Amino acid sequence: MGNGDLSKYSGDSNVCTLKWKRPVLKLIDQRKLPFEEVYFECTNTEEVAEAIKEMVVRGAPAIGVTAAYGVAIAALDFKGSRKDDFLSHMDEKISDLSKTRTTAVNLFWALNRMKKIIIDNDAADIGEVIEKLILEAEKIEEEDLRINCRLGDNGLKVFEGRDRKLKVLTHCNAGALATSGYGTALAVVRSLYRAGKIENVIVDETRPFLQGARLTAWELHKEKIPFFIISDNMAGYYISKGEVDAVIVGADRIAANGDSANKIGTLGLSILAKYYRIPFYIVAPVSTIDINTETGEDIPIEERDEREVREVLGKAIIPEYMPVRNPAFDVAKAENITAIITEEGAIFPPFDKKIKKIFDSR
Amino acid sequence: MGNGDLSKYSGDSNVCTLKWKRPVLKLIDQRKLPFEEVYFECTNTEEVAEAIKEMVVRGAPAIGVTAAYGVAIAALDFKGSRKDDFLSHMDEKISDLSKTRTTAVNLFWALNRMKKIIIDNDAADIGEVIEKLILEAEKIEEEDLRINCRLGDNGLKVFEGRDRKLKVLTHCNAGALATSGYGTALAVVRSLYRAGKIENVIVDETRPFLQGARLTAWELHKEKIPFFIISDNMAGYYISKGEVDAVIVGADRIAANGDSANKIGTLGLSILAKYYRIPFYIVAPVSTIDINTETGEDIPIEERDEREVREVLGKAIIPEYMPVRNPAFDVAKAENITAIITEEGAIFPPFDKKIKKIFDSR
Repeated sequence: MGNGDLSKYSGDSNVCTLKWKRPVLKLIDQRKLPFEEVYFECTNTEEVAEAIKEMVVRGAPAIGVTAAYGVAIAALDFKGSRKDDFLSHMDEKISDLSKTRTTAVNLFWALNRMKKIIIDNDAADIGEVIEKLILEAEKIEEEDLRINCRLGDNGLKVFEGRDRKLKVLTHCNAGALATSGYGTALAVVRSLYRAGKIENVIVDETRPFLQGARLTAWELHKEKIPFFIISDNMAGYYISKGEVDAVIVGADRIAANGDSANKIGTLGLSILAKYYRIPFYIVAPVSTIDINTETGEDIPIEERDEREVREVLGKAIIPEYMPVRNPAFDVAKAENITAIITEEGAIFPPFDKKIKKIFDSR
Repeated sequence: MGNGDLSKYSGDSNVCTLKWKRPVLKLIDQRKLPFEEVYFECTNTEEVAEAIKEMVVRGAPAIGVTAAYGVAIAALDFKGSRKDDFLSHMDEKISDLSKTRTTAVNLFWALNRMKKIIIDNDAADIGEVIEKLILEAEKIEEEDLRINCRLGDNGLKVFEGRDRKLKVLTHCNAGALATSGYGTALAVVRSLYRAGKIENVIVDETRPFLQGARLTAWELHKEKIPFFIISDNMAGYYISKGEVDAVIVGADRIAANGDSANKIGTLGLSILAKYYRIPFYIVAPVSTIDINTETGEDIPIEERDEREVREVLGKAIIPEYMPVRNPAFDVAKAENITAIITEEGAIFPPFDKKIKKIFDSR
């Protein structure tokens, strides 16, 4: 990535997903937004793992950055003096972090980058490795922010030449809160808005966890971008009425063929967009692409605690004796995706060949 | 309709939508289910109108029956002695009732039937008209129950010859609670279950009002029919995984061409069913067909209080300063409907001609 000035993207500095001040990682507690703006402090790996698992922090890129800091914190937390003890300590903590969420590939990608630092510094002493791990986590955070700004720029290019303002629909939260800042899908929305090209954003509330109603709406409100919130069921209605020019969402894992796993409900939106012939865009960093996952069929889908469906913000809506299910993600098929907008540009079909090319050139 | 024995359908006598005991109409308060089973008493037309508007009672056929009793109660409530005073009193009360909900055509259908009693008994004295209005409301209720039993039988025929048990998905509540008993879409589910043909029912929670999670699940639980509840966003996932053999829903108004308005989210389900090539059935009495409404485009869509989206069972999920929208219905296009199951049999495309034939023969 380049080293350009990021200040032009900093309008949303009021949305702060994570604050790292060695040796503490503070995460805005996304379970409590928009009603309370409080931070969850992590001083050990267990707290970082809990924060990821319990969705204090969520969104594939933010999970990656948080996990990287989790490794840095594990290193700082090491109490011994022998290198082999350090290595087995780090192995254990990295393994703990890897078990928090199953679908977001950025988690594994970030942990692998941190592992590589340990492997590459085989000969260095413990103190030196710890410093390098901290630097790497900080680098992952900064890179993520730079990447997101480029996602915004690249998204803007996709809509170049349109003469009227856009009405877009987004699902879940692929915003600053899902990243180290600026967002992925919302990076595109932010850049479009700053270019005077947004008329309105329709925000799916995104049951069961309400990331749309609580997080995306909160971000748009802070940025003064016009929007309204709907129940997820209403997306079809507004699309059918011509109230949506494009659907723009993030992704948690993209397979080598372009199939994209994202928050549950994304699959339905992709089919609605296809039926009504409006474009459907995935916006995600290349780190979300898992070249080793052939198709969407191979992406593991996390089933989360059924309490998320049974309750809404702690209020029971379904009695305990009734069975519920809670798959957290689904997969939009490549054939229903217009383009995947990455920091290296928008990828149009055929995705498999173009994705391979990106990875071959790395 | 025939006068056959309804006792074979009475397994669900524990689900009682309305209880008429002159001069009081008791309605199970559907806003409080499944946590509380309490009845809302109506002793005047205002209370009946409130019950319909505030969704104490909902579901197109149940709204029709309730409105008919609302007219009977208005008649019983008349304090004067002059026939012309009676007529203008009735006009006013019927007009009040007609303003409660805009989409469900059964409301207007039932009110028109009650109006016809008044017109047809032009020469009768007030007391006699009152008795006839009460009889007509009771007749509408009983007819509705008979019709629903036939919907169940006719639905069973649609699935004849299938060798394995069915996994079906339903949306909102088209059950006993949406009718005077047995249901419409759930009549088919009940009849299939009694014939040993149901493996599982997937119940959409149906935001914003949660009729699926609260009402349909409660009915299925009482009947011991196997089911699980999902957030609406998850329907696409289960359909894509082959966990749904058919989508079966009710309707609030069916246009002359077969376009069917039903609870918001129905449109999306019809498109998902089409995409995955599974059948999509509408189940509704002929009174739900509005022969004067040409297509779905002409069906007025009620926008309800935004509080329904902003709150879940009284718990605020979206702050007041954030804009929300709340259209209550959408329209499944005729081209995406496999069949409309009515008391006169299942109607397959082309719907327009077959619907016309039914109305011509009446």
